Amino acid sequence: MSELITSPQNARIKNLLLLQQKSRERRKQNLVVVEGLRETAIAVENGYRMTEFFVCPEISNQTGFVDLVGNARVTEVSAAVFEKLAYREGSDGCIALFEPRWLKIGEVKLRPDPLVVILESVEKPGNLGAILRTADAAGLDAVIVCDPLTDIYNPNVIRSGVGCVFSRQVVACSTEEAQQWLKDKGIRSYAAELQASSHYHLHSYQGPTAFVMGTEADGLTRKWIDFCDERIIIPMLGSIDSLNVSVSAAVLVFEAMRQRGFSIP
Amino acid sequence: MSELITSPQNARIKNLLLLQQKSRERRKQNLVVVEGLRETAIAVENGYRMTEFFVCPEISNQTGFVDLVGNARVTEVSAAVFEKLAYREGSDGCIALFEPRWLKIGEVKLRPDPLVVILESVEKPGNLGAILRTADAAGLDAVIVCDPLTDIYNPNVIRSGVGCVFSRQVVACSTEEAQQWLKDKGIRSYAAELQASSHYHLHSYQGPTAFVMGTEADGLTRKWIDFCDERIIIPMLGSIDSLNVSVSAAVLVFEAMRQRGFSIP
Repeated sequence: MSELITSPQNARIKNLLLLQQKSRERRKQNLVVVEGLRETAIAVENGYRMTEFFVCPEISNQTGFVDLVGNARVTEVSAAVFEKLAYREGSDGCIALFEPRWLKIGEVKLRPDPLVVILESVEKPGNLGAILRTADAAGLDAVIVCDPLTDIYNPNVIRSGVGCVFSRQVVACSTEEAQQWLKDKGIRSYAAELQASSHYHLHSYQGPTAFVMGTEADGLTRKWIDFCDERIIIPMLGSIDSLNVSVSAAVLVFEAMRQRGFSIP
Repeated sequence: MSELITSPQNARIKNLLLLQQKSRERRKQNLVVVEGLRETAIAVENGYRMTEFFVCPEISNQTGFVDLVGNARVTEVSAAVFEKLAYREGSDGCIALFEPRWLKIGEVKLRPDPLVVILESVEKPGNLGAILRTADAAGLDAVIVCDPLTDIYNPNVIRSGVGCVFSRQVVACSTEEAQQWLKDKGIRSYAAELQASSHYHLHSYQGPTAFVMGTEADGLTRKWIDFCDERIIIPMLGSIDSLNVSVSAAVLVFEAMRQRGFSIP
C-alpha cells in the first residue's frame, strides 16, 4: 500500500519543486525529475534507475506504471499537490525521480561511421528537446552540447524531447574536449554556418560525420568555424537568413540518413 | 516631433495590450502587433501598411525605423510603459501596428510547379513560427493553415517566425476549401503520416506538391489521410515514433528543394 501526500507544504513535495527548478540541486542530489509515463518508460528502458514515483490517482487513469517502478518508492498525491508539481498542460498524473548519467565524452560508444551532432551553447530548452527527438529518430550516435547554457536535464528539455535525453548518448563538455575527441576519433566535422559558400547537399556524409551547430542568436564562434573540416550552409531563398536551430540540425541529419539509406550499421 | 507616453494606463497602451492578447480584437480592429525592427522591416518590404509605431528611446538605439515608418503615427514611450508592452526578452524597443491581410485561398498566386505546406489545426504558435521560417527560407508558394487553433497573427507566431508571416502567402481556411483548391490547381498532396509505409525520400517532388501535416498531438485526421494522393513517412529508428511538426515539415520541404536543385522558377 502506497503513501498519500495531501499537503503542498510537504518537505518531499518542496524538494521535488526545487529539483525541477534548480540545475544546481539536480547536480547536488544527483536526481532529475521526469514528468509523464511515456518519458518515464523511455528512461527505464534505457537502464536509468528510478528512485521515486509520484502518481495522482485523481488525474491518472494509468496503471502502466506498475511494471515500470521496480524498487522505487511509490507515493500518491492529491490533485492539489499534483497541480503544484505539474510542469505541462494535460499531464497524465505521473512524476518520477531518476538518477541521471553525467556521461563523459571519453565514455561515448561509437558505431562504425558514426553520425553525431555537436551544439555550441544551445540556449533554449525547447530547441535542445527538438534536437534530441531528431537524434532519437535518426538513431544518432551522440549529441554533444559544448559549454551548455541550458542543463540537459532541464524539465523543459525532457518534456520537449519526449524523454529522448535518455534514449541517446548525450554529453555536456567543453569545446576543447569535444574538438580533441573529434580528432582522436577521426570524425569529419561540418560547421553549419551562414557565411559558408558550400551547399550542404553537395557533400557526402557516409563516413564518420559531425554536424556542428551554433547558438540561436549568434551562430558558431570562430573557434568552431576555424576548427571544422568543412563549412556548409543550407541554401536560403527568402527574406531572412537563418532557420530555427532544431530545423537546421534536422535538415542536415536527415540528408545524411538519406545518403545512408536510413540504415544503421 | 513625436508624442511621448509615460503612463501604462494610457488608453492607447491598453489597446495595444489588448491587440497582443486577443485574436478577436485583432480581427475587429483589423490591426496586428509587430515587435522588433527586423520583423517590422519584413512587413514593410512586403507591402503591409503600418498605422502606428511605438519606440522606447531608453531601450532602442535604433534609428533605422525612420526609413520604415512612412505615414504611420510615431509615439515615444517611457521604459516603464515599454516593459508592459514588450513580449520578448531582449527587445529592441520597437513595436508597430500593421493592417493584416486575411488572404483567401482563391487569392493565392502560384508559380509553375508550386510547393506548398498545409497544416491541419497546428496548435503551438512556436511551431507555426518555425514552419514559417522554413517556408521563407525555401521560398514556398504558400502555407495553408486549416481550421487553425492558433491565430496566424498571434504575437508568438510573428516572433518565432521572425516576421515570415509577412514574407510568404499564409492562408487560414477550412479543410474543405483547401481540398477543393488542391483539386482545382492539380497539386499532388502527400500526407505526412505515422502509419504510412512509403518512405518520403523515395518520391519525386518536382511537380506541383503539397505536404500535409497533422497536429502535434494527434497527427492527421482521416479526412486528410483519405484525401491525399500519397501517404509518406520519415523513417524513424528510435524509441519514439514522432518528430516535432516543424522538424518534419522542414525535412520534407528541404528534400523537395534538394530534388529541385534549390532553384525557384
